[in-house]
Amino acid sequence: APMGGNPYGTPAPPADPMWAGFSAVAGADQKIDAVELCKCLTQSGFTGSYKPFTQETCKIMIVLLDRNKTGKMDFPEYKELWVVLGKWKQTFESLDKDRSGSLDEQELKSAVASFGFTLSPTAIAAVMQRYNTNGKIYFDDFIALTTRIRSLSNYFMSRDTNRQGIATLGYDDFMSHAMSC
Amino acid sequence: APMGGNPYGTPAPPADPMWAGFSAVAGADQKIDAVELCKCLTQSGFTGSYKPFTQETCKIMIVLLDRNKTGKMDFPEYKELWVVLGKWKQTFESLDKDRSGSLDEQELKSAVASFGFTLSPTAIAAVMQRYNTNGKIYFDDFIALTTRIRSLSNYFMSRDTNRQGIATLGYDDFMSHAMSC
Repeated sequence: APMGGNPYGTPAPPADPMWAGFSAVAGADQKIDAVELCKCLTQSGFTGSYKPFTQETCKIMIVLLDRNKTGKMDFPEYKELWVVLGKWKQTFESLDKDRSGSLDEQELKSAVASFGFTLSPTAIAAVMQRYNTNGKIYFDDFIALTTRIRSLSNYFMSRDTNRQGIATLGYDDFMSHAMSC
Repeated sequence: APMGGNPYGTPAPPADPMWAGFSAVAGADQKIDAVELCKCLTQSGFTGSYKPFTQETCKIMIVLLDRNKTGKMDFPEYKELWVVLGKWKQTFESLDKDRSGSLDEQELKSAVASFGFTLSPTAIAAVMQRYNTNGKIYFDDFIALTTRIRSLSNYFMSRDTNRQGIATLGYDDFMSHAMSC
């Protein structure tokens, strides 16, 4: 073994209650792709009484935390996602007072604001138009749109070096990011 | 009737072979939403042996041509979409030489270039990662991604007043457009 390497192979997985579920799906490479992420989140019972996440939604979840652009998610990233999703689900449930499993435009606005994103009525209307089903936002779409708002905001902020809400972007850079989620 | 108005009510629909199919689905307001667009495109046989378009894809098709932001499409817009889709379908079929119903990364690159969009290998890889199923791009996803590339490119160009491939964008303007498709 090289100097400083671990002669005993891969270190033992952390003693974590989420590890068993993750590693069963992840297999040998200890990483999961979008299809496997859907499986993990469904088998863990995360979506509960809501419809399971679509593959679309799982794909953009992977992009959100995929810092090394492999299209796969490792265990620490999965745990990070779990925390973020938990917070979003809690907000969804607290706003969905009639337990219809959906939010209206006003509730969506409150949710987005509570996550710290400042979107104008025009932007909220655009999101609503894109993601509504008969005027309502269902859980899977809510998670998809929140994931995209976060990914796109993170990207924009990384280019808005003066923190003025204004960024100068190149076409290809813009397309690479906007098309990735 | 006001001066210059038409005292005989709505003008008769144009004698167009596509009108009957459109108007049957559109109903009284002579406009279609995403669900109705899916119906129109399926009933007209457009998708043929490919899987019918998902509602996701139909939603972003409406955004592409929805100049007045109503979330609905009128007959002239439907005809315009039909022409664009026809061109994209033809390109897809000509590249899908083995008739597998899917494209690989190289073929996707050729398709995007043939539509006049200049995307770097990085941008193409981002699109591929977002839209592939087991390394392939299927017809519905191809139309969805091409629609988004066109919408986002149109938006970017409208802000790139000097045609230098660089645009200065405000956060809310960026979000309103990136989240609408």
